[in-house]
Amino acid sequence: MQEVQPYIHKVQYYETDKMGITHHSNYVRWMEEARVDYLSQIGWDYARLEEVGVISPVVGVDVRYKGSTAFSDAVTIVVKILECKGVRLKLSYEMKNEAGKTVCEATSEHCFINTEGRPIRLEKTQPDFYAALVEQMEGSGV
Amino acid sequence: MQEVQPYIHKVQYYETDKMGITHHSNYVRWMEEARVDYLSQIGWDYARLEEVGVISPVVGVDVRYKGSTAFSDAVTIVVKILECKGVRLKLSYEMKNEAGKTVCEATSEHCFINTEGRPIRLEKTQPDFYAALVEQMEGSGV
Amino acid sequence: MQEVQPYIHKVQYYETDKMGITHHSNYVRWMEEARVDYLSQIGWDYARLEEVGVISPVVGVDVRYKGSTAFSDAVTIVVKILECKGVRLKLSYEMKNEAGKTVCEATSEHCFINTEGRPIRLEKTQPDFYAALVEQMEGSGV
Amino acid sequence: MQEVQPYIHKVQYYETDKMGITHHSNYVRWMEEARVDYLSQIGWDYARLEEVGVISPVVGVDVRYKGSTAFSDAVTIVVKILECKGVRLKLSYEMKNEAGKTVCEATSEHCFINTEGRPIRLEKTQPDFYAALVEQMEGSGV
Repeated sequence: MQEVQPYIHKVQYYETDKMGITHHSNYVRWMEEARVDYLSQIGWDYARLEEVGVISPVVGVDVRYKGSTAFSDAVTIVVKILECKGVRLKLSYEMKNEAGKTVCEATSEHCFINTEGRPIRLEKTQPDFYAALVEQMEGSGV
Repeated sequence: MQEVQPYIHKVQYYETDKMGITHHSNYVRWMEEARVDYLSQIGWDYARLEEVGVISPVVGVDVRYKGSTAFSDAVTIVVKILECKGVRLKLSYEMKNEAGKTVCEATSEHCFINTEGRPIRLEKTQPDFYAALVEQMEGSGV
Repeated sequence: MQEVQPYIHKVQYYETDKMGITHHSNYVRWMEEARVDYLSQIGWDYARLEEVGVISPVVGVDVRYKGSTAFSDAVTIVVKILECKGVRLKLSYEMKNEAGKTVCEATSEHCFINTEGRPIRLEKTQPDFYAALVEQMEGSGV
Repeated sequence: MQEVQPYIHKVQYYETDKMGITHHSNYVRWMEEARVDYLSQIGWDYARLEEVGVISPVVGVDVRYKGSTAFSDAVTIVVKILECKGVRLKLSYEMKNEAGKTVCEATSEHCFINTEGRPIRLEKTQPDFYAALVEQMEGSGV
């Protein structure tokens, strides 16, 4: 199984708000950055998913802000697969600051559709991608 | 009690993504737009909150995407107060497209802090603001 | 000739940065908002342009910041057509705050392409759209 | 003189728009990312500038789009100092895609103010920072 490295996001100036800290909406974008990186690390980067015709829209996000982050902070994001059923994928995200303090805990849920927008059962249509996700899920000790 | 009008957000071109629809992170920003408008309508716009020294950071959001929206759609957002205890506020958001279809259901949770960053009990420190929120909560029939 | 009304953008909280004012990158987004609104007012909203198959990518922007704006400010944006030749369009934007002070002066330049990405001569391919732009340019007394 | 390395920005999914390419407003944000990185490499990261009390707001940007970029492209950005007078700084940005093609050429202009918002003459108030900028300008052979 591919050992997955955490994703690191450096907070940009334009991501701060007038409270002087990172605006809360950006964490949802970092979840996407970390998710794309995670899939790439396990061999399924966006180009490959596009090639086989799989799209996985976000159907829900839940984000809990545990602490603030500030301009130029390096935020470490660990992604795990919580659930992977035929038509649904659920991921978790743990974000820590440089001191190791958890600043955000989040989950995202996804479905799978083909290029015509029809829902697909991953297990049947894309067994290799499905197998890669399940292997990670078991390996992650969730 | 102040009758609150729904907030309308027009989807901007820069809010779309390569899937051709609104990027999911923007809904979290629209929740903020609708929330600021809601508070303004019940007499507590940002300037007044700043004047009395109350800040209400977001401690969590939960967003369920029920349908997509596209460039130039007018999205109607109804905000309701679900909970208002001494130190915590929970709001709900229902977003509909022009055809009246629900495209997003969300909640946000907030705490209250003063300008030094210390948590405050709203009921005690800002009884007028607290009363306005509670009145809306009861009036909204939640 | 259609009398065009200025566009008004209300500054959002998520558009501010840690300096406490609007982040400068947002003005480029407001230019797009104002441009889309302008074209819609002269009878060429995005849906109609899409229907006839005209796309007008931005090939350049020049933005001069004359003053700052802050959260909840209403910024009034006046768009004018500076140049409209066969393959190129140049627009100007003047942005004022509520006190009437100019806070930003900008221009954007655009080319015209069809849905296959090929440059088109507007005058020949879309004479109605071209005529509408030229009429506005002359009417604006630039 | 400190040899400065180019800055690399990886295009994020949320930076794309419905045309399928990077939305043009993001290049202004990447200029900021590259500028912050550049100053950090020559010994003047944001923390140090904040410590000595220098702020350098953007007073203008000029951006020329020479080609498009797409999701997951790695864009290399070379920053140079074009001008550094007592009260004004002008930088250039050249952005290339992975094939070495220039996709964007831009400049930004900045003034210098202190924490009270008053303009300062850098040469007098912050001679070390001024010297570092001038050294880079001369070294870059602009």
